[in-house]
Amino acid sequence: MKDKKMDMASELSINTSLVRRMLVHFLRVEITKAGFERAVVGLSGGLDSSVACYLACEALGTDNVLALWMAHRTSDPESASDASEVANRLGVHLKEVEISSMVDALVSQLSDLSSLRLGNIMARCRMTILYDQSAAFEGLVVGTSNKTELLLGYGTIFGDLASAVNPLGDLYKTQVRQLARDLGVPPRIIDKPPSADLWKGQTDEGELGFTYSEVDKLLYLLIDLRYEPDDVLPLGFAPQFVNRVMDLIRRNHFKRRPPVIAKLSRRTIGHDFHYRRDWGL
Amino acid sequence: MKDKKMDMASELSINTSLVRRMLVHFLRVEITKAGFERAVVGLSGGLDSSVACYLACEALGTDNVLALWMAHRTSDPESASDASEVANRLGVHLKEVEISSMVDALVSQLSDLSSLRLGNIMARCRMTILYDQSAAFEGLVVGTSNKTELLLGYGTIFGDLASAVNPLGDLYKTQVRQLARDLGVPPRIIDKPPSADLWKGQTDEGELGFTYSEVDKLLYLLIDLRYEPDDVLPLGFAPQFVNRVMDLIRRNHFKRRPPVIAKLSRRTIGHDFHYRRDWGL
Repeated sequence: MKDKKMDMASELSINTSLVRRMLVHFLRVEITKAGFERAVVGLSGGLDSSVACYLACEALGTDNVLALWMAHRTSDPESASDASEVANRLGVHLKEVEISSMVDALVSQLSDLSSLRLGNIMARCRMTILYDQSAAFEGLVVGTSNKTELLLGYGTIFGDLASAVNPLGDLYKTQVRQLARDLGVPPRIIDKPPSADLWKGQTDEGELGFTYSEVDKLLYLLIDLRYEPDDVLPLGFAPQFVNRVMDLIRRNHFKRRPPVIAKLSRRTIGHDFHYRRDWGL
Repeated sequence: MKDKKMDMASELSINTSLVRRMLVHFLRVEITKAGFERAVVGLSGGLDSSVACYLACEALGTDNVLALWMAHRTSDPESASDASEVANRLGVHLKEVEISSMVDALVSQLSDLSSLRLGNIMARCRMTILYDQSAAFEGLVVGTSNKTELLLGYGTIFGDLASAVNPLGDLYKTQVRQLARDLGVPPRIIDKPPSADLWKGQTDEGELGFTYSEVDKLLYLLIDLRYEPDDVLPLGFAPQFVNRVMDLIRRNHFKRRPPVIAKLSRRTIGHDFHYRRDWGL
């Protein structure tokens, strides 16, 4: 496989209509299997949450979906209008709960707060609201983290990474974008630079130091095709870039698994007590 | 196995000095392996968090542990004094961050809040603080959920169930109590009725409708020894009790696993991309 430069763009292209059907089916099956018929989505005005909201509405019907816009005073007004546009186009109810006062109540007790810590606090306040509203609405929380973010650990554990069911976790960012076109997500949302919208001018690619287009190709080789880091260098990826990405994947593994439990007994949660079939279901 | 009534009390008894050494080793290895030498524990004044704090101090040294007392205005003053006593006995720094203002900032935007929803909001605000303080202190969050709670789902997902490493997750409540005696936890804390301390007079056993002593015996048979529900009835467990416990185990399975990701590719997080060994480590 080293002897030819792979056509990575075609490798990453997905059959959007098939994927769309699979994900709509996934949401319907997983949510009903858990005894629910409704879903809650935190709508940020960005690509991933818009796609998740489109999928949830297609799976469950618009009336069974609650979209939440959880504004902070630093949120870009364009994010609010993009979230509104998605909700309007779908005809889904968009509820607003603001997080500034909740965040401030904690931040006023803290000192020397970095923007990273503040961003994590904001993400966890939003999770708290999303889960509370899911209880009130009797719906499951639909996740919006994509495969690129999950692998790079570019998200807040127990914050935006928290959900009940995640339709996007096996799609790289560039693949979510392909799906968005099929779903009819507004082009403005598809084409704007991805951002966590925690401060003015923040963009994912600016913070990460590389583009989704580049990193998705590398991740596809390392993860999906099980290339070793040394094997991707001949394909033109810079060694520092490959090392950086490998390091992010390793260091953020804790975000992709449940808390590590010390094993003492013959049957331990997360070790050998895992599966539904264990209960004779 | 049905022909004799088992001596369950002896089955559930643990070798406390061995378990203590195993858990101290577990915490030291897991925390240093992740590149840390410090830990943060949310100390509620109850049994589990006290035991977790004792273990963390023994594993890492008192100076490397930060205990957090996260009071709400409804917290029992005795919980505060019990948390203080543990911190004083160990000589560990106890930091107080209060949650009432943060909780109120959210609650003021909500209507018809049940005590269950309020309790979940409080648990998630505490998680947000604990994780923020772990970032500031450069330590890992030590979990305090025991095996009984995890199996019954008696805890808040992304709240008190959130941690990096959990030394207690494979010990039933009655086993945590045995370990606490070995560690020298104050007898008052060992003997008081377990409570989430969310409202006055709340006790775990009152809410659950059965005692830890009863349910731990049943869980040990169902989980550790893989008895089928029908097999425990001849041992004297009431059918309604067995059904109720089986139902809690099943319904709360989602709290013990990461978000369910739709599988689309040949290698999916949580399906076939799981292990450290995948990365050649």
